[in-house]
Amino acid sequence: MSIDNTALLTDHYELTMVAAALRQPVAHRRCVFEVFARRLPDGRRYGVVAGTGRLIDELAHFRFGDDEIAVVEKFLDPDTVEWLRDYRFSGDIDGYREGELYFPGSPILTVRATFAEAVLLETLVLSILNHDSAIASAAARMVSAAGSRPIIEMGSRRTHERAAVASARAAYIAGLSATSNLEANRRFGVPSAGTAAHAFTLGFTGPDGPDEKAAFAAQVEALGVGTTLLVDTYDITRGVQNAIEVAGTGLGAVRIDSGDLGVLARKVREQLDALGATKTKIVVSGDLDEYAIASLRAEPVDIYGVGTSLVTGSGAPTAGMVYKLVEVDGMPVAKRSSHKESRGGAKAAVRAARSSGTIVEEIVYRADGPRPDADGLQLRDLQIPLVRGGEPVEPLPTLSDARERLAAGLVSLPWEGLGLSHGDPAVPTRYVLD
Amino acid sequence: MSIDNTALLTDHYELTMVAAALRQPVAHRRCVFEVFARRLPDGRRYGVVAGTGRLIDELAHFRFGDDEIAVVEKFLDPDTVEWLRDYRFSGDIDGYREGELYFPGSPILTVRATFAEAVLLETLVLSILNHDSAIASAAARMVSAAGSRPIIEMGSRRTHERAAVASARAAYIAGLSATSNLEANRRFGVPSAGTAAHAFTLGFTGPDGPDEKAAFAAQVEALGVGTTLLVDTYDITRGVQNAIEVAGTGLGAVRIDSGDLGVLARKVREQLDALGATKTKIVVSGDLDEYAIASLRAEPVDIYGVGTSLVTGSGAPTAGMVYKLVEVDGMPVAKRSSHKESRGGAKAAVRAARSSGTIVEEIVYRADGPRPDADGLQLRDLQIPLVRGGEPVEPLPTLSDARERLAAGLVSLPWEGLGLSHGDPAVPTRYVLD
Repeated sequence: MSIDNTALLTDHYELTMVAAALRQPVAHRRCVFEVFARRLPDGRRYGVVAGTGRLIDELAHFRFGDDEIAVVEKFLDPDTVEWLRDYRFSGDIDGYREGELYFPGSPILTVRATFAEAVLLETLVLSILNHDSAIASAAARMVSAAGSRPIIEMGSRRTHERAAVASARAAYIAGLSATSNLEANRRFGVPSAGTAAHAFTLGFTGPDGPDEKAAFAAQVEALGVGTTLLVDTYDITRGVQNAIEVAGTGLGAVRIDSGDLGVLARKVREQLDALGATKTKIVVSGDLDEYAIASLRAEPVDIYGVGTSLVTGSGAPTAGMVYKLVEVDGMPVAKRSSHKESRGGAKAAVRAARSSGTIVEEIVYRADGPRPDADGLQLRDLQIPLVRGGEPVEPLPTLSDARERLAAGLVSLPWEGLGLSHGDPAVPTRYVLD
Repeated sequence: MSIDNTALLTDHYELTMVAAALRQPVAHRRCVFEVFARRLPDGRRYGVVAGTGRLIDELAHFRFGDDEIAVVEKFLDPDTVEWLRDYRFSGDIDGYREGELYFPGSPILTVRATFAEAVLLETLVLSILNHDSAIASAAARMVSAAGSRPIIEMGSRRTHERAAVASARAAYIAGLSATSNLEANRRFGVPSAGTAAHAFTLGFTGPDGPDEKAAFAAQVEALGVGTTLLVDTYDITRGVQNAIEVAGTGLGAVRIDSGDLGVLARKVREQLDALGATKTKIVVSGDLDEYAIASLRAEPVDIYGVGTSLVTGSGAPTAGMVYKLVEVDGMPVAKRSSHKESRGGAKAAVRAARSSGTIVEEIVYRADGPRPDADGLQLRDLQIPLVRGGEPVEPLPTLSDARERLAAGLVSLPWEGLGLSHGDPAVPTRYVLD
């Protein structure tokens, strides 16, 4: 049993649908499925696409081998089981680049294949895009709030152990500087960072009580004076003094992980400066989210560490994207019942911007129709080919590309779109579907 | 590279701490680390322990092979790298059973080993327990709200693809009946279920328009009349009529996935009964959480499907547990700075109940001290041995054991503890540490 197989990261009903479809012509009809979000979560002004690169990697592991067949043959007929044994996605996928902004209705991913081939991918596609986009969308707000100050992602312990790896990747796309997560370093090349926790300092407690200086000395011996010393295990003022006494004024940084971070940062900065450690940086962490980061703008903070709020999407842990059948054999189809209406037909999208670069609207139009009018605005196509005939289109954008794309995207937002307050999407979505 | 290796699902700083510690006696001092939650999230009345079984499984994969070493040797000294090559956890772990209730301060897991051996596990321990316990805690509230009606977990698409598997497992512990997730079926034996989505019905659209009856007929042909037909793709009343016309009055169930579920359930029940399909069940789904489930108590609903709210912990996506060093060579240690104080010393816990079975308080006491007084109450020990000398203590509780434990735990709560409203923990935690 190979745990990297992804075929069973799938809802039971995708397979019963395939079983029912295979007895009918519908299984082999050419279909278009579209991924989009009906709305942005939680009053957000924009969303950030992330996960597409992971999805394309995982597609190659979406295979029904003997171990997977053993599970599904318990509830599927033999013909369906045989079809699954041979399953290879052979269709086409187009989509928004990772790091691209998105808005309600943006056609973030378009899957073209037979009904049976495409419906089978629904769960995996949505799991990856919904998770990674939720994290990247929250992280981008933190990056905006932090301005030019770097943020380190350290939330692995607050989310599922594998989601942590994807979170670190999504956060890196959003512009965070580094992660605590080593698997994200191995798998995706995200820079990793970290020094020590309170346990390290507490571990030096002896019969005569705590010995913070011994702990600091041991850390500096192993990691050098450029390290970051955690100064709030006991008394912070004493901790800062101990840190400089042990490491000298060349100490890289001190970290404060509790208390009123703004007040403490000011006190610690004054103390460090008075001790001559004017270059020693201040790292703050402890339940920071985008609002707390913004509130520390005027304080002498050099680096932020964020955890819980990042890996939980800061109040919006899922992006709420859906995977909808929009076209069958060239005919638009759409659900018609209340509350969840959707727009039929395969779509493409362009983003309209003024010559200044500021974006004005997202225009969603029929994929087989003419590109919409520009009205003097600059239009940029938003989808790129990602998979053709089941194979990735090389070269796919890299993580660095995604970081740059998002950085440029944030600059293109109207000023109110960068605010942290809840409200409408930063630009409206206009549909040109007739 | 084996993706089932878990050694790098770890924060960078756990390894730099080991590196710094190994040059000192501290690395080999006997330490006790304790997992607990300072508070319950979001005004909850109780938490549910989940993930312990997964953690013990993953411990066996926590090894530094060549691929893992290649990552860590970039920032660690050769002696530390050699130590990691030989790393096997050889200590002891005690903890609360899966499915056990917990309260603020409950010593959910106690790890006894050398400093270096134990500190290395922090991130993995917390990732697993924080995620799985958050899901189980939310799921238990949904099960309470649903009363005797079954709930199916169908949230895989709204969370990370691997977190989805753990969520299905945690939800099953909490008492949900089944999951949509096939990997959870393979890996943990959770029953899986599912029938069809709107895409299936839409796929039968022809040149003459939609053909819901053809879709229903195809589904019944493949899955039998016991299946569940999704009746809200177009008009629900027409959908119910089509469903019974195609499947007959022996149809297993209809599913409603949108709209005002209470009103619709009543209308559909009346229609089904009028058509003679008195045994056909009604499944409702679509953005249900514990409050929506409770609000449907008086409606003719037979089965609930829950997704987003379950896999995101219904507002509390992480349990907020911490992993704290509490004892070094037999000496209690504790952080003393503001806001995050903790209580030193290894602890055990008993839960006190009246003879009726209703619980009264959680008593946390020194692991090496006397068991607290009972005052006429019944006391139950909460920790069991899980790992001895690095090896799992067989037999560990099964998933069924965990389900039964939680069901019994919910019955033991004072009545106000089962309410959905926010408030204080259902019982207080009393510390007996002198």
